Amino acid sequence: MYDINKVRADFPILSRDVNGKPLVYLDNGASAQKPQVVIDAITRAYSAEYANVHRGLHYLSNLATEKYEAVRGTVARFLGAADENEIVFSSGTTEAINLVAYGWAMPRLEAGDEIILSVMEHHANIVPWHFLRERQGVVLKWVDVDAKGDLDPQAVLDAITPRTKLIAVTHMSNVLGTVVDVAAIVAGAHAVGVPVLVDGSQGSVHQPVNVDAIGADFYAITGHKLYGPSGSGAIHIRKERLAEMRPFIGGGDMIREVSKDAVSYADPPMKFEAGTPGIVQQIGMGVALEYLMDLGMQNVAAHEKALTTYARGKLDGLNWVNVQGNSATKGGIFSFTLNGPAHAHDISTVLDKKGVAVRAGHHCAGPLMDHLGVSATCRASFGLYNTEAEVDTLIDALELCHELFA
Amino acid sequence: MYDINKVRADFPILSRDVNGKPLVYLDNGASAQKPQVVIDAITRAYSAEYANVHRGLHYLSNLATEKYEAVRGTVARFLGAADENEIVFSSGTTEAINLVAYGWAMPRLEAGDEIILSVMEHHANIVPWHFLRERQGVVLKWVDVDAKGDLDPQAVLDAITPRTKLIAVTHMSNVLGTVVDVAAIVAGAHAVGVPVLVDGSQGSVHQPVNVDAIGADFYAITGHKLYGPSGSGAIHIRKERLAEMRPFIGGGDMIREVSKDAVSYADPPMKFEAGTPGIVQQIGMGVALEYLMDLGMQNVAAHEKALTTYARGKLDGLNWVNVQGNSATKGGIFSFTLNGPAHAHDISTVLDKKGVAVRAGHHCAGPLMDHLGVSATCRASFGLYNTEAEVDTLIDALELCHELFA
Repeated sequence: MYDINKVRADFPILSRDVNGKPLVYLDNGASAQKPQVVIDAITRAYSAEYANVHRGLHYLSNLATEKYEAVRGTVARFLGAADENEIVFSSGTTEAINLVAYGWAMPRLEAGDEIILSVMEHHANIVPWHFLRERQGVVLKWVDVDAKGDLDPQAVLDAITPRTKLIAVTHMSNVLGTVVDVAAIVAGAHAVGVPVLVDGSQGSVHQPVNVDAIGADFYAITGHKLYGPSGSGAIHIRKERLAEMRPFIGGGDMIREVSKDAVSYADPPMKFEAGTPGIVQQIGMGVALEYLMDLGMQNVAAHEKALTTYARGKLDGLNWVNVQGNSATKGGIFSFTLNGPAHAHDISTVLDKKGVAVRAGHHCAGPLMDHLGVSATCRASFGLYNTEAEVDTLIDALELCHELFA
Repeated sequence: MYDINKVRADFPILSRDVNGKPLVYLDNGASAQKPQVVIDAITRAYSAEYANVHRGLHYLSNLATEKYEAVRGTVARFLGAADENEIVFSSGTTEAINLVAYGWAMPRLEAGDEIILSVMEHHANIVPWHFLRERQGVVLKWVDVDAKGDLDPQAVLDAITPRTKLIAVTHMSNVLGTVVDVAAIVAGAHAVGVPVLVDGSQGSVHQPVNVDAIGADFYAITGHKLYGPSGSGAIHIRKERLAEMRPFIGGGDMIREVSKDAVSYADPPMKFEAGTPGIVQQIGMGVALEYLMDLGMQNVAAHEKALTTYARGKLDGLNWVNVQGNSATKGGIFSFTLNGPAHAHDISTVLDKKGVAVRAGHHCAGPLMDHLGVSATCRASFGLYNTEAEVDTLIDALELCHELFA
């Protein structure tokens, strides 16, 4: 049984006011709030259990190393990965996708080679590939979404040519809420030998994920959207791809030997984790993932599904609200504009006065904004602690906007 | 007046026991402990003031952005930098030096171009340059230290040739404790048009730093050694160099516009800060730097100088201890071996039983270990909270090692 009041009580920030109103936090797509267990784990780490990892043989260093390295197994369990040595820690999805771009793609792709992207990718899954276009002539091929905001896996597979070296696609759009059938894309791509990277920044937050079932070569997650600390994250990379990758960030901990004339590297995953890592952030992410697994991602998904259905019904009732994306798979992410002169920024400012936190802007999704023909939208994005009452507050605040700007 | 008892009371971990003994934390070279104000700032951020930065217009996002961006000015003040837009945030020195290697050096240096390094660099300031050697034929030229562990600035300048494109040198050795006259190196190098990168990982921790006086093109610091959170850091980069650099990590926040066919980048420093950053870590680093400035880095340096003198006297009295490095500039970092069969790892294990945390190993300084002709040392490294009584505890524990292994 998913006890929403108990869940909400786990997140201290949810009891605060904003502008004299109870906080209604609907900016989860940008970053999620943190449960007390995560905050406590950080405090404990710094107050009583802190040292650098992998470096000392003393008690605190061993303790910190054990706690830090245990997170690798936690991430593997969370993602359904069989081998925790296929989990590479990162500071978030952005760094993780750059690791793939620099470590795997840069030395392999030549001018004219192609990378397939969907038009609804986040800039984190676009700009690293633009680097390869700018710097070595790689060709980016874009696959559109349909009128509902769905990405047809067959359309992605139809874009494959003999020059295709990678498909990079989101698991869930941070603008439309569309969930992509990434397993179908992977199956078709692998049948013709094309690797697939999945940006799981949103997809891993709102539903159970099993990387074994999906089968992607690369699956990236980011801790701060998963109710963990800022600066935490990981990427699942299949052993075959890990073996093909050269190191990305150079420094301590990722080497075997360094001399004046030569350097040799540690085995994966250490090969891809240079320098003092985000020790306490990763420990915190581990606690956040344990928290999610304790709740049960099926239960989180069911709660959010009900909330999404409720919100869709309410928003559909307002014929002056234009919601972007109407996929049957749509999760609790609602990007919208209002009829009339109100800019997204104006709307978000009015909502903020009512305590409702939403995001306004391009949502780091330039090509999708172009595709939709808008420059900016408001986005209300739900998390595991949101309620129907909060949807009602959002709706009331939108009605106020409608009155103010109509 | 530097009140060491008051300072120690600021660090909660220092009151804990290890193996039934009071913790004597002498592994500050690897990472420093955190004062309560830093821990409290992290707790406050996650409990009441958290949202993503630069992204929303709502109250919490604005609040988090203000607190996060204010740290840029704090770092500038800490480093004596005139322009806070020359401060680029990083996850630590390792990422920062890789930013310089990938963003500045990689597109500019050709096969046969030379980078000058001292033999006492940390792997963080070696491996990124080995990448350029391996990948594009750049030549690494090494300058030795003398018998005392001093690096003669003139020896560095003498290594300059018409092919020299960069000097990369530490401000303070993490093994020998030697403080390098980086201002002299910069002055000489700039006179012949060669840029200089200074690794300030240790140098910024133990003395006041003024990047204006030093004049380096790049000066990197790491938050976790500066009593701040893991995963925090920054690098000061002069405007002229910033203008020459291409972006390193690609993603959100570092762009101006992204379309299917093109990308344009934000101005520095944002151009070099992709994706959701280490929001709370950087806020915590800002609090740590304020803490240091409140103590006064002159006072910290004076305290550590006295402690270093005391420790040198004590260690010099033990003729079976071999301390590496005897520079007149030596700070509170003592790497040593013992006469007899005891390996550094054995020694550190015995010390740990007495509550004394030191590091054993190569200290991420392979070329220096080769130069010294040792495979590993123990390292006792002091911080602003250490005391003469802790030196005495170290000495007692070493005498026990001497008895056990003699």
